[in-house]
This record gives sequence, C-alpha cells and structure tokens, in this order.
Amino acid sequence: MKYTLAELAERFQCELVGDPHCTIEGVHTLEQAGPSQLSFLANPKYKNQLENTQAAAVVLHPQQQPESAGNWLLHDNPYATYARIAALFEPATDVAPGIHPSAIIDPSADVHPEASIGPYVVIGPAARIAAGCILHAHVVVQRGCTLQENCVLHPHVTLYAGTRLGRRVIIHASSVVGSDGFGYAPDAGQWVKIPQLGGVQIADDCEIGAGTTIDRGALDDTRIGEGSKLDNQIQIAHNVQIGKHTVMAGCSAISGSSTVGDHCQIGGGAGLAGHLHMTDHVIVTGMTMVSHDIRQPGAYSSGISQQEARKWRKNVARLHHLDELARKVRALEKKLAELETEAD
Amino acid sequence: MKYTLAELAERFQCELVGDPHCTIEGVHTLEQAGPSQLSFLANPKYKNQLENTQAAAVVLHPQQQPESAGNWLLHDNPYATYARIAALFEPATDVAPGIHPSAIIDPSADVHPEASIGPYVVIGPAARIAAGCILHAHVVVQRGCTLQENCVLHPHVTLYAGTRLGRRVIIHASSVVGSDGFGYAPDAGQWVKIPQLGGVQIADDCEIGAGTTIDRGALDDTRIGEGSKLDNQIQIAHNVQIGKHTVMAGCSAISGSSTVGDHCQIGGGAGLAGHLHMTDHVIVTGMTMVSHDIRQPGAYSSGISQQEARKWRKNVARLHHLDELARKVRALEKKLAELETEAD
Amino acid sequence: MKYTLAELAERFQCELVGDPHCTIEGVHTLEQAGPSQLSFLANPKYKNQLENTQAAAVVLHPQQQPESAGNWLLHDNPYATYARIAALFEPATDVAPGIHPSAIIDPSADVHPEASIGPYVVIGPAARIAAGCILHAHVVVQRGCTLQENCVLHPHVTLYAGTRLGRRVIIHASSVVGSDGFGYAPDAGQWVKIPQLGGVQIADDCEIGAGTTIDRGALDDTRIGEGSKLDNQIQIAHNVQIGKHTVMAGCSAISGSSTVGDHCQIGGGAGLAGHLHMTDHVIVTGMTMVSHDIRQPGAYSSGISQQEARKWRKNVARLHHLDELARKVRALEKKLAELETEAD
Repeated sequence: MKYTLAELAERFQCELVGDPHCTIEGVHTLEQAGPSQLSFLANPKYKNQLENTQAAAVVLHPQQQPESAGNWLLHDNPYATYARIAALFEPATDVAPGIHPSAIIDPSADVHPEASIGPYVVIGPAARIAAGCILHAHVVVQRGCTLQENCVLHPHVTLYAGTRLGRRVIIHASSVVGSDGFGYAPDAGQWVKIPQLGGVQIADDCEIGAGTTIDRGALDDTRIGEGSKLDNQIQIAHNVQIGKHTVMAGCSAISGSSTVGDHCQIGGGAGLAGHLHMTDHVIVTGMTMVSHDIRQPGAYSSGISQQEARKWRKNVARLHHLDELARKVRALEKKLAELETEAD
Repeated sequence: MKYTLAELAERFQCELVGDPHCTIEGVHTLEQAGPSQLSFLANPKYKNQLENTQAAAVVLHPQQQPESAGNWLLHDNPYATYARIAALFEPATDVAPGIHPSAIIDPSADVHPEASIGPYVVIGPAARIAAGCILHAHVVVQRGCTLQENCVLHPHVTLYAGTRLGRRVIIHASSVVGSDGFGYAPDAGQWVKIPQLGGVQIADDCEIGAGTTIDRGALDDTRIGEGSKLDNQIQIAHNVQIGKHTVMAGCSAISGSSTVGDHCQIGGGAGLAGHLHMTDHVIVTGMTMVSHDIRQPGAYSSGISQQEARKWRKNVARLHHLDELARKVRALEKKLAELETEAD
Repeated sequence: MKYTLAELAERFQCELVGDPHCTIEGVHTLEQAGPSQLSFLANPKYKNQLENTQAAAVVLHPQQQPESAGNWLLHDNPYATYARIAALFEPATDVAPGIHPSAIIDPSADVHPEASIGPYVVIGPAARIAAGCILHAHVVVQRGCTLQENCVLHPHVTLYAGTRLGRRVIIHASSVVGSDGFGYAPDAGQWVKIPQLGGVQIADDCEIGAGTTIDRGALDDTRIGEGSKLDNQIQIAHNVQIGKHTVMAGCSAISGSSTVGDHCQIGGGAGLAGHLHMTDHVIVTGMTMVSHDIRQPGAYSSGISQQEARKWRKNVARLHHLDELARKVRALEKKLAELETEAD
C-alpha cells in the first residue's frame, strides 16, 4: 500500500504544500513516524514536535503550518483527515471472501455472494446477509436477523433472533445483541419471566465494542441511532432508545426504557436509571449516576475524584451525617441572629 | 399459535368477562395491540389507555375492570398472568431436537435423547445433560458438568468443569460459569496463583443474563439459590452464596466469599465488598457500594444523582474538606455557647 | 495423585514435623479437610480451628505450630506454599495433547507439536503457538499472534491480529484481547473512526479473568507487565501501560493512554480516567474514581459505603448544596468574629 501525497491530497481534499511525488507507506505519531510515514498534528500543544519529526509528511490545520520547509497536507479538520487516510493502511482481515466450508447456514437464509463468512459461523433460518458483510470466525446469527451492506461482526458475536443491523455496522468480539431483557413479574415471593418479544435495531454506521450487551425489547424494539458508537462492556437494557451520533465510553450502562438524545457523550462507568429521558447534546462525565431526566443540554456529573484514603474515610464519615451538620448550621444561624438582635 | 379466551381463562385461572370464543394470536401493549392481540393493565396509571386500545382482550385486576363493554381476563396478579400467557407466543428456538452432527460430545458424556444440542457445541467427559435441555450453537460444557431438566444455554456460553445446574436454568449468550476465582498469595513482591478447586451450583429456575461471569469456589462451591435472577454483565466472585428469589440488575457485582440472603434486590452497578453478609429482603439501590454487613431488611444506598457539572465540581471540592468543615461548625457551636453564657 | 509429606516438604522447602510417610491426596479448609487432605493456616485468627481439624497435615508458619502432636509443614509463607502444593491436585484439563481434527489452522501458522489445540479452535495466518500452550474449545487466534510457552486460553477467547503473549499467560473464557480502541475524530457532528493500528503485549505470568476486554493501541501497543493479574470483566482501553505484579479486581477499568505502575492494587469497580499516571505501590480501593495523577505510593479512595436509603437521601440532598453550606459557615465565622470583637 503506497500513495503519493498528490493522490492523498486529491482524494481527501487537502491543500498540498511540498513534494507531490513523496510516497507514503504508513502512519504514525510525530515522535515515531519514519521517513515513509505520514503523521498528523491535531492538538496544537504538540506543535513543537514538528521540528524533529522524521515523518514524510504531516496533516495539519493551515494555521499550524510551520515556516520551515516540509511536506504538509493542509485541512481544516486534520484529525478526521488523518483518520480517513489511516484507514488506507489497515491490515487485511483474516476472513476470505465467500463462505467458509465449515459455516453452517440454514437453507432459508439469504447470504449475498459478496459477503465473507468465516469458519464455524452459524446462520439461522430466514436471516439475510447483504453484500460486503464480513462475519468472523464463530459468529452466530439467529433466525430472521438482517444485516445490510458492509457490516463487520468480529469473532464470537451473537445476534439473537430478529436483530436488524443497518449498513456498515461494526460489532466487536463476544458482544451480544438481542438477549432477553431483564423483566419479571413478582408473584407470591417468586419471579415470573416476562417473555421478551421485541427485537433490536442498530442503524447505519454504528460501532459496538467488545463484550457489550444489548437486550431485545419486551414488546417493541430496542434502538440505536445512526452513527452512534458504543465502547466495550456496555450494557443496554430492553426498550432503550439511543439517538444519532451519541458516544458511550466503556462500562457505561442504560437501564430499561430510557431514551438518550442525539450527539450525547456518556462517560466511562456512568449509569442511567430506567424510564428516564435525556435530551440532545448532553455530556455525562465518568462514573456519574443519572437518576432523573435531563432536559437541558450541558454537562452533568456525580463522580468523585480520589483522595488519600485516610482523609477520605473522615470525609465520608461526615457525609453520612451531612443532614445533621446542615441542621446545626441552620441552628447556629438562628442563634446568631438572636444574639445580634439582642446586641442591637 | 391461537388460543380462545375461554382456553386462556381456564388455563391461567382468570375470570373471563366477554366473548369466550374470541381468539388471541399474540400480545402487545395497550397502545399498540391489534384486534387479535391480548394486552394487560398492570400499572393503574395507564388505565386511561383502556378506552382507546384496539386489543382483543385485556388482562387486569378485577378492581380495574372498566364499566364499558369489552373482553377482560380478571386476575389478582394481572402482570404475572400476562407473563404466563405471553410465554405461549414466544417464537420457536433455532435449535432442532436431537444432536446436531457437528456437536462434539465425549463418549463418556450422558446426553438425554430428548435434549437439543446445537451446532458446534462441545461437551466434555462425564457431563450429564438431562431431557429438555437446549444448548445453542457454540456452547462449551466441560468435564463433569450436570444440567438437570429443561435448561437453556444460549450461544457461546461456557460452563467450566464441574458446574452444576438445576432445572429450568437459563443462561444467556457469552456468559461464563466456573472460571477461576481471583486468588493469589503474595510472595516476595509477586503473586502465586491459588488453585481454584471448588465448583459452581446454580439452583432451579435461575436465569443468568448475557456476558455475566460466575467464578468457581476456591475450595467449596459458589452457589446461587432457587429462582434468583441475574441480569447482564454481572460479576460473582468465588465462594459467594446467593439466596433464593434474589434479583441483581445489570453490571452489579459481589466480591469473594460474601453471602446475600433471599428475596433481595440489588440495583444496577451496585457492588458488594468481600467477606460480608447481607440478610434477607434487602434492597440495594443503583450504584451503591456495600462495604459492611447489612443485618436489617430495608433499602440501602450510596449512589449520588447527577448535577450540573459546574455546580457538582464546587460541591466535590467541599466534600474533600468536609471533615474540616464539620470541625469548623463544632468550633462555632462552642464559641457561640461561650458568647451566650457571657451574654447571660 | 498422592504425595507423602516427606516428598512435599522436600519439594516445597518446608520443615516437616510429624510422620514423613503420611500421604496426601487433596487439599481443603481446616474445617472441612478429611484425613487424607492437607490444609493450611494463613490467617492467625483461624488458629483455634487447628484443634478440631481432621486434616492429615497442615501448612503453617513456625510460630503458629501448636504444642499438640500433629503433622505440620512449617514455612515462612504458608499461604504461598499451600498454593503451590494445591496446584498438584488441580484436575486435568479437557484438552487432549496435539491438534483436534476440527481445529482450523492456517498453513502459514506455526503450532508447536507439544501444544494442545482443542475442538473448533481457529488459528490465523502466521500465528505462532509455542510448546505447552493449551487452547481450549472455540478459541480464535488471529493473524500474526504469538504465544510463548505454556499459555492457557480458555473457551471462546479471542486474540485479534498481532496480539503477543509471553510465557505462562492464562486468559479465561470469553475474554477479548486486541479489539479496536475507542477512537473517533469529530467531523461536522459525526464521528470518523480512527483506525487502531497498534497491538497488545501481555508479558510472562499474567492472568486475565473471564469476560475481560483489552483494546489494541491506536498506533503503539497496549502493554501489561510481567506477573500482573486482572480479574473478570475488566476493561483496558487503548494505549494503556500497566506495570509488573499489579492486580486489578473485578469490573475495574482503565481509560485510554493511562499508565499504572508496578505492584499496584486496584479495587473492584474502580475506574481510572484517561491520560493519567499512577506511580508504583498504589492501592486504589473499591469503586474509586481516579481522575488525576497519583505520584505518591499509598492508598486512595472515593467510594462511599452504604447507608439506610432514608438517611442517605437527605444527606445527598445536602451534598448537592454543600458549597452553599460551606459559604454559610464562612459567613457565620465572620459574623461571630465581629460579635466577639464588639463584645470585647
């Protein structure tokens, strides 16, 4: 894989400063790029690394272009441009085109001849796999699932019956989509399982990390909107509705029937309670518990940063009596007001 | 799958009001049910939806029966009754009866002829699979495991050697039962692995969500009692003992050697420290850290709901000095008492 | 498996007091060991159990040796010694030596003849599996991975392309190593995937629990140092660097590009933010959020223990106004000082 700067500039709509014939064979950081690699400057605080980089060329914002000579690909969004160029250098997948002879595909399933189905994949009745999809080893796609064009399922992914994926959906290893939601009716001290009869819909361009679980709806579908990205080990409960272009960092979770808007950012380890609504453009910082609706865009928190354990223990002991402390302060205010009155 | 209301009323011990010949072909919410579907009213706040529902019939409490004409299945526990009826409409599983030819079963394993073993299932030596069990694609059951009647293991479940399941245990995709507990002995700055020689026992009617992990005991067994339900992504450490009919929501975790009573409810993201005891009928709310014994039934918390990040940052800064603040209040109280004495 | 006390004493460098011909066939706790089993006393608080134990012999510290007659294996580190002896009694693995005929191994992969490759294992191009490695059923090892001697991969483990494991690395079921890091560049309200081109290196003697995910680096490798142990359901983001002999308990997580030192202990459910540095010999207690660097060894916390929900609700309500409360206290201090001045 080799590209000239001229090719890259044209393909990714950059302004090229420098040698159009310079060839690029890979990408790396400013610090570690070699003389045939492209690098990028996205964060101005690394600008001083431009001086010593060995990179063949650098993608950067026009305002960051140094006065010194060099090969520059100028673009208003250098980070996204770097990302698009770097995709050219991703190594090939293990999965060969076509259907591996060990795959077990129900005769009623419809697998496009231009899909790649890896070893030991199991595809159930009436499933549909569109062109360009790649199913890695050991993927299980159950009855009636549909995958539109160019989806990638990494090893050991399970799609329960009826899961529907849009185009270019990526799901990483060991993730599970469509497992039963957690619903039981209490009955004389025991729990009766509520059948989970809905499905899961994941729209175009979503990416789901490894070890993530997304439950099917109880009656309606659980839905994840276009372009949303979920990191590893995320839990999405039944009936959840996530909007478009929302990102969720690792180990965050959304409880049943909650809705999250578009363009939200949910930090690692954050948890949303059930049956609540979060509007668009909300940022939830790491390890926050969201227990009631958020109706205004903005940043919300309840995470607490670490402190020396010795000090923290004392503070927590006080926190467990904070209501009393507040009452004492109120009492002090009253007494002091009385004293002041007397003093007058 | 079609049932008359008369059939349903008899089978599920409801009082039928309306047309006994009305046939039901499915279930849905009051809002979305069509004219051949059954719905239910469990939460009185949705009672106004009875007016406009298109449902063929509704399961509800006798006290909620509207005066208007309609088909009603009356029962004291309409939600549990709905759950039992809805189970009739669950779609068939992908797994065909009998043993799929690609399954690899050790000759010393005992698989009942009425079990259903899916593609690429691997069953180890001396394992026993009772009648009615369904093992989905890619399940691994190691040496000496026993599954009693009617268990369902979803795709990619792993049961390590010696795991014992009761009747009707359901385990969702990619969950792991019997992995080694996390035990090491320190030795000169390094960690020596403590062999984990116990097993795991899961009693009748438990359900385990997707991506959940349950470690084997160090020497004794880890145990989960009858009818308990664990959601997705739960972590149960070695030697934990969970009672009967206890429910744990997603991403909660119990550390090693702790015991949890019967009829407890543990909220999402909650964590229990190790070597502690929680009695029966305890509710732990979401994201709570349980770090010491709970000896009285009731609800316990330590989760904090979200606040605008700007305000929260100020409050946390104060929290980190709460002990000092409490000391200041104490000092104020003393000084004020002195002033009052002087003033008298 | 039978060993005389004389054999064990010699092999594990213990001082033997008692019958050298006594044979040991297993291990158990002091309370439950039978007359052919070995037990151990590591925590002095269980010393009174020595009186009634039925154990054939006990490993203990010389200072704990009781005056009564018995078979004692004396060692300065009885727990580690017990651990090493107990390893003799671990049951055999399900995986037979050699390559199971159902395994699919790329012709360009190099699998040592003394490795054990289980059913339905898939090994990609150019992977290298050294002697003594055990790959359980359904393991997937992608292109270019290398496993040094005596690694054990439990069922359903996925190693993405280019993962490198040292010697004696153990990875439990359904864990994923080398999945794409969570990196996107914002572009006009959407997210452009940053290709994740680095790998993962896990050094000698690491153990990784079940359901754990470790992402590949964006450009450089994610690394876990020698002898470190990770429990179940842990999330390690891209570019993280973990030192040697560090332990992480279940459900803890480290965000992207953070570094953790040697000999650290990270409690269950704890979370580290990204791009931070934690020095050696740091203890982070359970459910703590580490949001800034830790430069001094010691213990750090931010977890809050549970309280009755009724009381906790009041305290949290006050916490949400703690900054105001602190301002009130400050105002009181000023007023009181004024009153005192007046009174003088």
